[in-house]
Amino acid sequence: MKTLSTYLPILDWGRRYNRAQATDDLIAAVIVTIMLIPQSLAYALLAGLPPEIGLYASILPLVAYALFGTSRALAVGPVAVVSLMTASAVGELATQGTPEYLGAAILLAFLSGLILIAMGLFRLGFLANLLSHPVVSGFITASGLLIAASQLKHILGVSASGHTLIEILASLVERIGTANVYAMAVGVPATAFLFFMRARAKPLLRRAGLGPRAADILVKAGPVAAVALTTLAAHQFALGDKGVKLVGHIPSGLPTPTLPSFDPALLRDLLVPALLISVIGFVESVSVAQTLAAKKRQRIAPDQELIGLGAANIASSISGGYPVTGGFARSVVNFDAGAETPAAGAYTAIGIALATLFLTPLIADLPQATLAATIIVAVLSLVDLKALTRVWAYSKSDFAAMAGTILVTLGFGVEPGVLAGVGVSLALHLYRSARPHMAVVGIVPGTEHFRNINRHDVITGDKVLSVRVDESLFFANSRYLEDRLLELVAERPAIEHMVLVCTAVNEIDASALESLEEINRRLGDGGVTFHLSEVKGPVADRLKGTEFLAHLTGSVFLTQYEAFAALDPETAHIAEARRPRKATPGPFWIGPQI
Amino acid sequence: MKTLSTYLPILDWGRRYNRAQATDDLIAAVIVTIMLIPQSLAYALLAGLPPEIGLYASILPLVAYALFGTSRALAVGPVAVVSLMTASAVGELATQGTPEYLGAAILLAFLSGLILIAMGLFRLGFLANLLSHPVVSGFITASGLLIAASQLKHILGVSASGHTLIEILASLVERIGTANVYAMAVGVPATAFLFFMRARAKPLLRRAGLGPRAADILVKAGPVAAVALTTLAAHQFALGDKGVKLVGHIPSGLPTPTLPSFDPALLRDLLVPALLISVIGFVESVSVAQTLAAKKRQRIAPDQELIGLGAANIASSISGGYPVTGGFARSVVNFDAGAETPAAGAYTAIGIALATLFLTPLIADLPQATLAATIIVAVLSLVDLKALTRVWAYSKSDFAAMAGTILVTLGFGVEPGVLAGVGVSLALHLYRSARPHMAVVGIVPGTEHFRNINRHDVITGDKVLSVRVDESLFFANSRYLEDRLLELVAERPAIEHMVLVCTAVNEIDASALESLEEINRRLGDGGVTFHLSEVKGPVADRLKGTEFLAHLTGSVFLTQYEAFAALDPETAHIAEARRPRKATPGPFWIGPQI
Repeated sequence: MKTLSTYLPILDWGRRYNRAQATDDLIAAVIVTIMLIPQSLAYALLAGLPPEIGLYASILPLVAYALFGTSRALAVGPVAVVSLMTASAVGELATQGTPEYLGAAILLAFLSGLILIAMGLFRLGFLANLLSHPVVSGFITASGLLIAASQLKHILGVSASGHTLIEILASLVERIGTANVYAMAVGVPATAFLFFMRARAKPLLRRAGLGPRAADILVKAGPVAAVALTTLAAHQFALGDKGVKLVGHIPSGLPTPTLPSFDPALLRDLLVPALLISVIGFVESVSVAQTLAAKKRQRIAPDQELIGLGAANIASSISGGYPVTGGFARSVVNFDAGAETPAAGAYTAIGIALATLFLTPLIADLPQATLAATIIVAVLSLVDLKALTRVWAYSKSDFAAMAGTILVTLGFGVEPGVLAGVGVSLALHLYRSARPHMAVVGIVPGTEHFRNINRHDVITGDKVLSVRVDESLFFANSRYLEDRLLELVAERPAIEHMVLVCTAVNEIDASALESLEEINRRLGDGGVTFHLSEVKGPVADRLKGTEFLAHLTGSVFLTQYEAFAALDPETAHIAEARRPRKATPGPFWIGPQI
Repeated sequence: MKTLSTYLPILDWGRRYNRAQATDDLIAAVIVTIMLIPQSLAYALLAGLPPEIGLYASILPLVAYALFGTSRALAVGPVAVVSLMTASAVGELATQGTPEYLGAAILLAFLSGLILIAMGLFRLGFLANLLSHPVVSGFITASGLLIAASQLKHILGVSASGHTLIEILASLVERIGTANVYAMAVGVPATAFLFFMRARAKPLLRRAGLGPRAADILVKAGPVAAVALTTLAAHQFALGDKGVKLVGHIPSGLPTPTLPSFDPALLRDLLVPALLISVIGFVESVSVAQTLAAKKRQRIAPDQELIGLGAANIASSISGGYPVTGGFARSVVNFDAGAETPAAGAYTAIGIALATLFLTPLIADLPQATLAATIIVAVLSLVDLKALTRVWAYSKSDFAAMAGTILVTLGFGVEPGVLAGVGVSLALHLYRSARPHMAVVGIVPGTEHFRNINRHDVITGDKVLSVRVDESLFFANSRYLEDRLLELVAERPAIEHMVLVCTAVNEIDASALESLEEINRRLGDGGVTFHLSEVKGPVADRLKGTEFLAHLTGSVFLTQYEAFAALDPETAHIAEARRPRKATPGPFWIGPQI
């Protein structure tokens, strides 16, 4: 039943909120805030926006999600992939650094929020399933590579551009001569340090005698240390005068809430990007939220998550921010740090608000190369090229969808990448269901079971042809069904009865019903009676009362055994008399335990 | 095995061609020629082209199809729906009556021919299955209504225009004041006469003592009679001077073969229309060809049909014609008249060539209103509004696809109509497969069968939960599967084993495999063992060697009975001891005969 607390989950967990939970939430919030300050600045730069926009997108959105979201560990805010998608969408419409660019990004957040809320209210969360796991994984990997490549220019201290991997790399190679030694002197060690902190520091700190939590906090503070050290160095050596790009003056103070300006032409141009950002953001967010909820036997409500993320984006927009979603890395940190309720997010928001008020003057000298290093290290952990070999081993068509998504994303950009992934997934699914697997089945001696004659030691008679079709019958495969069944009968002139075994038929649509009528008619013309067996309840309900059933030359049997026994009692008798293959039941492969 | 005769079917039937077949083919050709002369002129006008283009499209294409086609009864040439689609596509790019308009139509035929041949060579005939029967039927109905409405202007003798039903009707209402009495004096009786001939004349002629074939030929000659009578009347009363539009001077003589001019910009603009025309033309053609072939226990080869129709369109293009396909009405006439081989089409081509050479001077005075009358009568027979109620009764989602196609076609034109139909079909299919039917099953006492606990009198234990999922597991439903299975377990705290019954699972893609791993992990965390049963051969082959199987907490059982007997032997024993519901097997509904 829908109650107010379905739409406002805070009413549910808020009532039972206690001091122990508050303590845990506060500790988690401190850790996430430390992590979020450099990330929010870095992702804003990745999106082509002034750094303070990243801070703005990390305050109100977190409060909105705390009110409307259902995940207890999700850390909402700017994330790498959505920042890249924002840059790609807004970059088409305005020049970076102009008020139009900023306005478009703010409007994009608003539109994306509206779309998410609408999807939530209409319970359209299932649309996110159109992105198969390999497509999402391929997209994230390719985006990670694109983002890392796009940040190399800051490490090298050159100005380069491009939306595809080739454009970016070509642009870098062209400008490599203008590389700034001072920028590299900041960027390269910063990157190396951050990689070290992420990959190796924790075991070393543990061995040095630190407790697990202290080691964890130290590791997570790595980016803050890098920020502090390089800012100091930049200030000390006046690196800004030596061509090293610094973050520069950031207006301190909280954002003033305003509505974005609604330009109809801009709205139209941003619609498709907003839709893609919403769906990708939702998929990324809901995956991590579900994984974390499962670890504590909690559940999240995907449709309510849409509303929570939508509210966060609206909040981001009216406080001058850009599109946000639940980030993978920060959410895991939030969870590991012990966040118990969405309140942790609200506390993080307070932390960022304080940083916005008091820390901004300190980071004017922060080199952009340091932020680029934090981005590169963060996104490369999302790149999972091993998934390609894993998927290849299991399914060539999933591999095709994944590889296609990666190649199109790298070669043509993020929007074509997502669209290609969805298109390939759908096309392969239709191609497979258009040519369903069909098996001629015979009876397993001594049982009432029927199995594929090509795979099992079974008995068939000459008179009855039993065919199992391993797919629902619908428009995409109905003509193929006609062709195959008539071909199978044509190959066996002695056949008197054809039984279609419907164990795997979950639906018969109007096209397939016409095809069944046609099969019945053509078989009837050739003196072959047409029967169905194992028709499922919902399918049977709809068949009742159709013309097909009135015209059917044969019968509809509850089970295939009943069909076989009625149509060819002699062979059924022979099969019954034979000993079963095995005396006792048992699994045909055994897992690790039973 | 592919031989030369696969690609050139004439080598197959041509070798055995005999005098009896030739006689039958000739008779059919005469009847089809009589029918085709007015139709080809009328459809060319419908496409916005000079009337002789219809004749050109009825000569070489028929010869090309006779060489490459596999249907023995298909009558290729101009058809109503494709003519309308041509008018709609070319009308966007050029003004009717200009050489550019004609050039674009000719190029459209060429492009459409190339697309069809490419689809045939790559065996992509299955793509036509993306159009479900209700969508095709809705599209044909709506096109018929559109065409009939578009021809009313000729009957009324006004000039009107529009691509949608509302535009056309609004334009007619606006100009109704300028209606030409003389045009109406020709058009209204001609329409009435043709309706009468089609609907009522045959029984009357039979009762008047004519044999069935003679009556048939007379009825089919109805349009020719209308053409002759109204041409005479127009000549006699100089109707052309009284504002009645006549066909006018038609250049006599055969077309000179030339290549169309390939303008890259035009090619790009025509690509999507050519694709839609190819697919719609192919679907229409292959449906009628299959229906007619089945009546004589013959088969057609859909992929070779693509090549035959492609060759026909290329032939049409190089002889100055426009897109063609196999027409429904003429093919049925061809079949009924006794056509035995594709040679009948070649003979028809000779008939049209003779008409082009010698009859054109005679039809200069033919009123366009007469041609409009033949079109209206022909297309209204394609309108099948009863199909809407039939489909509504069987399937609401198929009805939605059909009604959507009709409304979009009438309201926005033919191309949006087809695209909407495909889109709605796909969306509904995905929506259904995204939320598959799942049933908790129990054992039917005294048998080894398992059935839905909500529909059958079955036995279940407390320890084992067996769930049958009635759909292949793939990206669109994998998350839903996770949610539902965990929900079902959460509702039953006593459960120790969960068995997923895979009778209906024909595929498990990489996304679903991840979901199964996740389910296994989460159930394992909760102390519930996860098992599979009834896994099909192809699915089992792919599961072997995956990590999922290594991690599976339970087992994979060949049959659900084996799973149940192994996991809950006590309940299995109780179920075995109970008497079966019925002593003898029998169908649960009986068709008319067994």
